[in-house]
Amino acid sequence: HPYLEFHIDGIRVNVVPCYSVEKGQWKSATDRTPYHTDYMRQHLRPEMRLEARLLKRFMKGIRSYGAEIRVGGFSGMLVETLILHYKSFLDTLVQASNWNPVIFLDLEKPTSSQDSKPRDLHSPLVVIDPVDPNRNLAAAVRGDKLWGFVAASRELQNNPGTWYFFPPKPTPRTKAKFAKLLEHQNRDVVAISFEHSRMVPDVLWGQLLKMEKALTELMIRQDFHPIKSTVWSDEGRSSAILVEMDTSTLPGVQLRQGPPISKMDDSQGFINRHLNANDTVRGPWMEDGRWVVDKKRRILTMEQLVTMALKDRKLGLALPDQLSSSFRQNVKVLENRQIVRLLGRESFDQALSEFLAAKPAWLKPHH
Amino acid sequence: HPYLEFHIDGIRVNVVPCYSVEKGQWKSATDRTPYHTDYMRQHLRPEMRLEARLLKRFMKGIRSYGAEIRVGGFSGMLVETLILHYKSFLDTLVQASNWNPVIFLDLEKPTSSQDSKPRDLHSPLVVIDPVDPNRNLAAAVRGDKLWGFVAASRELQNNPGTWYFFPPKPTPRTKAKFAKLLEHQNRDVVAISFEHSRMVPDVLWGQLLKMEKALTELMIRQDFHPIKSTVWSDEGRSSAILVEMDTSTLPGVQLRQGPPISKMDDSQGFINRHLNANDTVRGPWMEDGRWVVDKKRRILTMEQLVTMALKDRKLGLALPDQLSSSFRQNVKVLENRQIVRLLGRESFDQALSEFLAAKPAWLKPHH
Repeated sequence: HPYLEFHIDGIRVNVVPCYSVEKGQWKSATDRTPYHTDYMRQHLRPEMRLEARLLKRFMKGIRSYGAEIRVGGFSGMLVETLILHYKSFLDTLVQASNWNPVIFLDLEKPTSSQDSKPRDLHSPLVVIDPVDPNRNLAAAVRGDKLWGFVAASRELQNNPGTWYFFPPKPTPRTKAKFAKLLEHQNRDVVAISFEHSRMVPDVLWGQLLKMEKALTELMIRQDFHPIKSTVWSDEGRSSAILVEMDTSTLPGVQLRQGPPISKMDDSQGFINRHLNANDTVRGPWMEDGRWVVDKKRRILTMEQLVTMALKDRKLGLALPDQLSSSFRQNVKVLENRQIVRLLGRESFDQALSEFLAAKPAWLKPHH
Repeated sequence: HPYLEFHIDGIRVNVVPCYSVEKGQWKSATDRTPYHTDYMRQHLRPEMRLEARLLKRFMKGIRSYGAEIRVGGFSGMLVETLILHYKSFLDTLVQASNWNPVIFLDLEKPTSSQDSKPRDLHSPLVVIDPVDPNRNLAAAVRGDKLWGFVAASRELQNNPGTWYFFPPKPTPRTKAKFAKLLEHQNRDVVAISFEHSRMVPDVLWGQLLKMEKALTELMIRQDFHPIKSTVWSDEGRSSAILVEMDTSTLPGVQLRQGPPISKMDDSQGFINRHLNANDTVRGPWMEDGRWVVDKKRRILTMEQLVTMALKDRKLGLALPDQLSSSFRQNVKVLENRQIVRLLGRESFDQALSEFLAAKPAWLKPHH
């Protein structure tokens, strides 16, 4: 969907076109917006508007506000609908604290009939669009943003403060501080970084999130055990996937499980395949009623993993279309203190700080 | 059961007493022996005796012969019963190649009634004692010895040779060779070694096997991943458990999984427990809909594991009674090249060679 963006006095303004259609005769994704505006003008009383603004500020502070792909959070319409449903900011938080999936909210239907509604099975949160009963306003809310909101809602009640709404900027760190931090993480941190052409943020982030998934799944298949990962982008030409794991260097041998010894044909096949093979380091031998064998591991490091996956299709790395060729051409794998090379790029320092901290900024020690 | 052992002209002779009882009125474990001897004298024809000797030699060569606890293999009576059942050495091997648990053999009963026999559920191999229908001659055959016999039976047919019967002695290695081997194993090898009082071999080996199990289970619980283990003993005052694992040194942090975020009370408990705790390294944070937290790991090395397990009963190391106090007093944990300190002790060099080789000696490359 095309739109126009410009900035006046530091305020970003989006002009988004839509078709003027009858309710229900939607021709494009934004045609509901005038109906949304009308609906809220009619139903959202002035004091509830303040509650909605408070909830938006809270969600912004805890990083759950915004339907853009980068965030994957709650849209403005969704927040306003929650306020219409629960009446106030605090009641929304109290109710959200108890949310148990699948959560189903429909303003326009009496509560009793809700169980018979067809539900959106892919979504843990279903909030029926008051101007379109076939649409789930929360369909694009990602799990981490939903549960971040639930967790922060509880925490604000346990440990109230203003930092949920206005999180302090993290104190900037020097390159040396970051290097030290990266070396003393007790784990290995890897940045898979690459340059690419400019594209619309929603497209870019969609592609980057797919890439994060493809890469971490590749790591899991190859015995690297990613503990957490995130995506950074300057939304221009540079992006990186950050991954943390216990170790980014695997041992040179890999124990491979074979068939149960009781299965004669499978056992014979396993022995024939491995006994004289060049890449057999040791064995086969028998362990707990099965054949096992030590094989030479082809892929020991993250750098090797990425390089091999670009050459060998059998490793099954499916890169998203619009980033694939850039990634192939200039991907760099940086480990631990090498990652400081990316410092200074737009928003990278903060992204790295938050990644290394892991704990959400709003979760503060209880006193 | 007490018995007398002496040596004449290099031959070991055991004199084992038993009660002279009516068949079935057993008062001690060895009272069946005269009946076994009678039974075989009557049933085992001269040419079958040669077949039985061949099978015994084969089983000895592949380390599956002998009912003593150290071996956990096939007793003489069991081998002779197999020959009575299958008629010849080669037919026994052909049949054993196809054994699929539970294997049930009863000489004295027609084949048709075998399915209705009550079976020994703990044993993959049930061979009814021809002089006592309530006894399984194979009850003490351990899984590794049973499957070693099955696998070697197949292999002799695929790749015949005399080495199954008369395995060559492994060529002795120098201390330097062993040290190099231990350093280049691509894994870590640990010897948990200790001195103890003398005891009857069957008692000692029973205790050592229990200890091996207790120690490897402790390792698994504490995130060490033993790949294989074995027991060595000089059958005098020295014994050791050998264990191989990918790494014997764990990272300083440990990711602990918490409750699903949707469970409010569990989540609150988890946050309260870990947010301000001294041993929390990082977090809690949210991952895939759950709380997780990085905790400081108390036990990083095998040495720490053994030391802590002796102090802290919560780690659940249950040492076998008769070795417990010796183990507590003088256990030593040797890693990789430190293990060369044990070289030269009775049968240790061969035990270590076989442990490092992993592949059974009878499994040779096919040409």
